[in-house]
Amino acid sequence: MLGFTYYTPTKVLFGKGTETKAGELAASFGAKKVLIHYGSERVRKTGLLQTVEKSLEEQGIAYVELGGVVPNPRLSKVYEGIELCRKENVDFLLAVGGGSVIDSVKAIGYGLYNGGDVWDFYDFKRVPKGCMPVGVVLTIAATGSEMSNSSVITNEDGGIKRSCNTDFGRPRFAILNPELTATLPEYQTMCGCTDIMMHTLERYLNNGGYMDLTDGIAEHLLRTVMKHARILLSDPTNYESRAEVMWAGSLSHNGLTGCGSDGGDWACHRLEHELSGLYDVAHGAGLAAIWGTWARYVLDSNPARFAKLAVNVLGITPQEDDKSTALEGIAAMEEFFRSIHMPASLTELGVNPTDEEYKILAHKCSLATHDNLGSVRKLHEDDMEAIYRAAL
Amino acid sequence: MLGFTYYTPTKVLFGKGTETKAGELAASFGAKKVLIHYGSERVRKTGLLQTVEKSLEEQGIAYVELGGVVPNPRLSKVYEGIELCRKENVDFLLAVGGGSVIDSVKAIGYGLYNGGDVWDFYDFKRVPKGCMPVGVVLTIAATGSEMSNSSVITNEDGGIKRSCNTDFGRPRFAILNPELTATLPEYQTMCGCTDIMMHTLERYLNNGGYMDLTDGIAEHLLRTVMKHARILLSDPTNYESRAEVMWAGSLSHNGLTGCGSDGGDWACHRLEHELSGLYDVAHGAGLAAIWGTWARYVLDSNPARFAKLAVNVLGITPQEDDKSTALEGIAAMEEFFRSIHMPASLTELGVNPTDEEYKILAHKCSLATHDNLGSVRKLHEDDMEAIYRAAL
Repeated sequence: MLGFTYYTPTKVLFGKGTETKAGELAASFGAKKVLIHYGSERVRKTGLLQTVEKSLEEQGIAYVELGGVVPNPRLSKVYEGIELCRKENVDFLLAVGGGSVIDSVKAIGYGLYNGGDVWDFYDFKRVPKGCMPVGVVLTIAATGSEMSNSSVITNEDGGIKRSCNTDFGRPRFAILNPELTATLPEYQTMCGCTDIMMHTLERYLNNGGYMDLTDGIAEHLLRTVMKHARILLSDPTNYESRAEVMWAGSLSHNGLTGCGSDGGDWACHRLEHELSGLYDVAHGAGLAAIWGTWARYVLDSNPARFAKLAVNVLGITPQEDDKSTALEGIAAMEEFFRSIHMPASLTELGVNPTDEEYKILAHKCSLATHDNLGSVRKLHEDDMEAIYRAAL
Repeated sequence: MLGFTYYTPTKVLFGKGTETKAGELAASFGAKKVLIHYGSERVRKTGLLQTVEKSLEEQGIAYVELGGVVPNPRLSKVYEGIELCRKENVDFLLAVGGGSVIDSVKAIGYGLYNGGDVWDFYDFKRVPKGCMPVGVVLTIAATGSEMSNSSVITNEDGGIKRSCNTDFGRPRFAILNPELTATLPEYQTMCGCTDIMMHTLERYLNNGGYMDLTDGIAEHLLRTVMKHARILLSDPTNYESRAEVMWAGSLSHNGLTGCGSDGGDWACHRLEHELSGLYDVAHGAGLAAIWGTWARYVLDSNPARFAKLAVNVLGITPQEDDKSTALEGIAAMEEFFRSIHMPASLTELGVNPTDEEYKILAHKCSLATHDNLGSVRKLHEDDMEAIYRAAL
């Protein structure tokens, strides 16, 4: 078991109707002028935006709004937000949406606080010294960005998707009302469930530093998401299942499921970033499409760990050796992804890279990771290309 | 499943040698003049105090010291600390010790921040508006005070033990090095394990609002502490087991194991507060001595919940009905307590109240809880007395 830092300062308000408390929470963190950042106009049609506006007004908090954030949020929108906030003297940033909106608002916060070109922080040229305070009203359970230190932005110039991870980016508060996710389309819900599982899998599948407590929490989180994803397939408005998935989403990426580990692997995330950077596919679907191939590629470096996952999460009966158990587990996980209508290959994802594109994907991933990716097994550019190709 | 607030702002630094970072962490939270608060001189003999002093000096942080905190920490020591800090212009409070020292330092923080008589906050006469910032170097895994909102102080005038629970009391940082607990006497270690388990049991055994995710985390935490308590009986310096127990201690009382519940029962804690207020027994031992009797007393109000505990935590085979399963589970838990040399009755605790004392215990508990205690079953003064008597 290895040492770790655990830091989750986000105040979570969870339950029905909690979005009416947005103004109260923003006020408690000193907000005077808020940017309400959001994606599509769905949040206005459902009345959520008006509820949030009203709660701010009740606290005497002024606000401006900027919508139009898209999945794989764009740097151009971040620049637009920074400019607007400067002009309007905004002092608090409120994301009303899912992971893309939260990541976009964090990027705006980094830009406002530090000055200069905010892309520097995503391109490893500078390290942020702070971030303007951020709050969240969550509408999609998926990325865990509502409690995480992470922000992922896509630079349209080259389709480059990069993350900036610092504790400054952890939101001050997160409002989690599972009801707000009840009308999400099935595809988005299942992409979300996959992303949630992957945040724990990336931590769980590593190469050292396991803990009983952390491992059991991780395994139970995975079982819980799998169970309730299945329920939501046939009963998408089930409140209890929406609640389980939503809370799992936050706990899966706030650090809890990695305490005592070596930090996790994260190869699938980085491999997927290049996929969605180039093809604009949904992050969760991209992860499902690549996971099984990655797992088989690295399996020999730590068969016992994959076998533990197979037995404790996927219900596989232990076989004659760890590798056999692990392979059954990987197949079962792929089967689970398919059962919730997620792809388990690039073909199923609808992506068929050209020979040149395989090389581009691997080269960009290698550049972004200094050609040193993963924990279970260290991957270099040729490994990355081999995984992309085998994932077809 | 019920709504909840989850707020755990404490930055945790976990692992070997982390006590050398005390100064760095204190500096990051703006400390200029620190009170180092501690219990016995053991922390000086082991060299821990000198390590902490050195780490403060390296950051140019001045400090004063106040030791002598005892188990069931006394109000008089809190007053002494407040006076010293005022005189010395202390702006940051650092507890080096276990739950008693942390609780004492939180009380000093409430007194300094709010002025007036600090006992008011424990006697329900005033509500604190803040707390001077607190940091922790933990030496005993038990109370979870290093992440919790709780502070429990005993007023020697009447042996009254009361708690003050506010988010202001959550420490800014907690340094958790399992090595520091390796030389604890067995009795203290096992009292700690019991207290840790009880923080989760109090939340788990309630009367509504269960969650799959929360329940599974709670059950796994209980199993983990039981497993490693057993290991520590024969191998007290086992680092991995010390680490599991220490991290479980923090997670058990930071709110995680109660998310989505009705807030928990807490009857055992309140019943025990009167026991240790009057007889100065160790908190963990007092909890073990009363739990089984309490459980049988309230069982009929929610047999399914106790049965779930029996099956998922204690490995009981389901019987013909929930109550039978639950009763086997309660007996198994008492057997576990005895196996780690904890008492499962007042007699085993070494306490034999007089007829008058039974009445005093119940009356004080009733006063402290407005005669309305518990969640599984509402307890009034006559119930409290009945439980104390049956626990003999």
